Amino acid sequence: MKNPEVAAGNGLLHRRIFLQSGVGLVMTGYASAQQLSDDSWSLAPGTPIPEYGTRSRFERNVVRTLSNPNGEARNQHARTPHHLLNGTLTPNSLHFVISHTGDPDIDPDKHRLVIHGLVKQPLSFTLDALARYPMESRMAFIECGGNSAPLFSKEPIQANAQALHGLVSCAEWTGVRLAALLEEADVDPKAKWLIAEGADAAHLSRSIPLTKALDDAMIALYQNGERLMPGNGYPMRLLLPGWEGNMNIKWLRRIQLTELPNMSYYESKIYAPILPGGKAYQFYFVQEVKSFITHPSPGLAMKGPGFYEISGLAYSGNGRISKVMVSADGGRTWAQAASQEPILSKAFTRFRVPWQWNGGPAVLQSRAWDEAGYAQPTRSEFVATRGEMTRVPAVTAFPNEHYNAIVSWSIDRNGEVKHVYA
Amino acid sequence: MKNPEVAAGNGLLHRRIFLQSGVGLVMTGYASAQQLSDDSWSLAPGTPIPEYGTRSRFERNVVRTLSNPNGEARNQHARTPHHLLNGTLTPNSLHFVISHTGDPDIDPDKHRLVIHGLVKQPLSFTLDALARYPMESRMAFIECGGNSAPLFSKEPIQANAQALHGLVSCAEWTGVRLAALLEEADVDPKAKWLIAEGADAAHLSRSIPLTKALDDAMIALYQNGERLMPGNGYPMRLLLPGWEGNMNIKWLRRIQLTELPNMSYYESKIYAPILPGGKAYQFYFVQEVKSFITHPSPGLAMKGPGFYEISGLAYSGNGRISKVMVSADGGRTWAQAASQEPILSKAFTRFRVPWQWNGGPAVLQSRAWDEAGYAQPTRSEFVATRGEMTRVPAVTAFPNEHYNAIVSWSIDRNGEVKHVYA
Repeated sequence: MKNPEVAAGNGLLHRRIFLQSGVGLVMTGYASAQQLSDDSWSLAPGTPIPEYGTRSRFERNVVRTLSNPNGEARNQHARTPHHLLNGTLTPNSLHFVISHTGDPDIDPDKHRLVIHGLVKQPLSFTLDALARYPMESRMAFIECGGNSAPLFSKEPIQANAQALHGLVSCAEWTGVRLAALLEEADVDPKAKWLIAEGADAAHLSRSIPLTKALDDAMIALYQNGERLMPGNGYPMRLLLPGWEGNMNIKWLRRIQLTELPNMSYYESKIYAPILPGGKAYQFYFVQEVKSFITHPSPGLAMKGPGFYEISGLAYSGNGRISKVMVSADGGRTWAQAASQEPILSKAFTRFRVPWQWNGGPAVLQSRAWDEAGYAQPTRSEFVATRGEMTRVPAVTAFPNEHYNAIVSWSIDRNGEVKHVYA
Repeated sequence: MKNPEVAAGNGLLHRRIFLQSGVGLVMTGYASAQQLSDDSWSLAPGTPIPEYGTRSRFERNVVRTLSNPNGEARNQHARTPHHLLNGTLTPNSLHFVISHTGDPDIDPDKHRLVIHGLVKQPLSFTLDALARYPMESRMAFIECGGNSAPLFSKEPIQANAQALHGLVSCAEWTGVRLAALLEEADVDPKAKWLIAEGADAAHLSRSIPLTKALDDAMIALYQNGERLMPGNGYPMRLLLPGWEGNMNIKWLRRIQLTELPNMSYYESKIYAPILPGGKAYQFYFVQEVKSFITHPSPGLAMKGPGFYEISGLAYSGNGRISKVMVSADGGRTWAQAASQEPILSKAFTRFRVPWQWNGGPAVLQSRAWDEAGYAQPTRSEFVATRGEMTRVPAVTAFPNEHYNAIVSWSIDRNGEVKHVYA
């Protein structure tokens, strides 16, 4: 490479390399002159185009990891393989799912959405009726409040980005503004909350402040262009952009307007993070600013010294990402990453930094800021306030939620990438 | 509905309805008070979450239509069902595909991309080598030059939006800027063109001006977050944002730098649109500004008078969509549509207009403008220059390409939607 501009310690280069061509990024040695051969697939007709495409058989290892691989009738998680994806979207088949009684097989023609309680005009909507209302589309991430919970452990758990951070995904959602439906129902001024309930066997319900419902809440009908996936709420779900995943009620069947919250299981026991002094948060709605590096990350082996792109995902429930900084020396020096345009509110932002790895030890970190002025804390700052995990993770990840501190990957001389605290 | 603001004739309302809540869009009659019942799926556990999700069985009719349903070893098309989708993205399984010898089953570890010809340093890239280069992500539509060719017919062909306009799709593509690879190959100043060739059995090749290759061309490796679909070029394709689909060479294996174009089959015979006087275009690269309405459209029945959202897709190979106008009276009066943000260059823009259908006859049209100042022509303006189809469409859609004129759907008193020329 010809004289690249250095931006921070341990080989981090200036993001300008991404912003212009002709900056002298010449990496001789990774490519070589070689004759083309005609492989078997170039010499005979391929397979006919199917009505509904499926991916290459060579991609079969790109799957979600399951917390319930034997398919028992219980709470179960499917985690997104962020280390094997790129871009800013999560494909529908790989969007994370948490389901408490499995995915219901809902007949969309029989499903109804009822709005009732403190309203002058109770309403019941078929899918066809909803389809007549004005729609909107928006990119939005959804993150489980328990995502990254293994990082509350006192010692860094050796697992990959999928296992540690796979309970967040991002998609384009299209549907009807909840505000339009509430206007038609004519909400009683006494109503301050609504209770949203799913049609799954768990009838999962959460209480949502009316202010959020009237702000940017959506009844989502489409996910990345097609109807919602069964695990993501088919045929309709509540979307509360930037708020705790569990509140984005899937298989939505009921919205009841009330004066007070319901204090249901998921808001009074679960998702009420317990603090070191014994007190607990109640209604911790926003998924705060966060980022993690997906490439390189544990499980992706380095292939010798030289140029790499460090790349990852940043997002904030408070709005747009304003800046991502990356360090290759465990936080001593930082270089600003290039953020992929367009930078959208409450959606994934893909960041990238060019890096010349000298083959020596490195500790990679990313730190994101959002337009509301929040920054990711360091892990030590974070656990000083929020505490560390006191029981084994398999037994309880729940009392420790909303982890959004800086994540560190170490790289040793053999190119092995590990999860560390730095 | 309370006093909606009228924007144009035959019931078109002001798009302000989409821009604010609380505008009095109250549509009593589409929803009703009704008791919720517990359906079978609410009373028993659902199905376990799979590693790789599949859509609901109730969506099985949402498929591409095939020009080669019996899977013969020949040219074949799969068209996107735009009338059944919403938002701005095409899901990977439903992205349009044209393949001349079927989809090759390429082993990504054996596939190579070779850059040779007028370069000082010929190069051969493995997929692993490409993965080390700086990447970028961008939304981009790809459209076949022959999309909408049935509209060259002298009489309007009765078919739906999928059959008429299904050879265009839009996705987020992530990959390596071609400019970076050409810089490393050190292009000879004599080179003015490159010839890109696929690894399919057809070895489809096209000539591309070097200026485009150095502008925004990409070697795409990911489609909507995951690896390319087999029909869209797995494991790598050329992306030439805004340019004729056929030039975006799939299964890309070779780029040869040359002084002159190759005058291959697809540029000298096919995709050289013949004009009424007998002359022909050569190298008609850009897919010009275009739009069509997807909702309502043929095959989607109206469900009685009242409020509807008119919605469709607009795009231009010259940049961003600057404006979309919609008419409900066959072009006599027009209302400006709301364009879904973010409006991205050379990508789908979803537009929406609120409409109060009085149950009488209507002719719906959309007309798009782009930031380069181009507008969609009327059909009569267009065919005066480009001609009409003189042979039956099944025999030859090819001499009539790049149709981008205004599309008209008529609605009769029974709510039937038909394709008309107006």
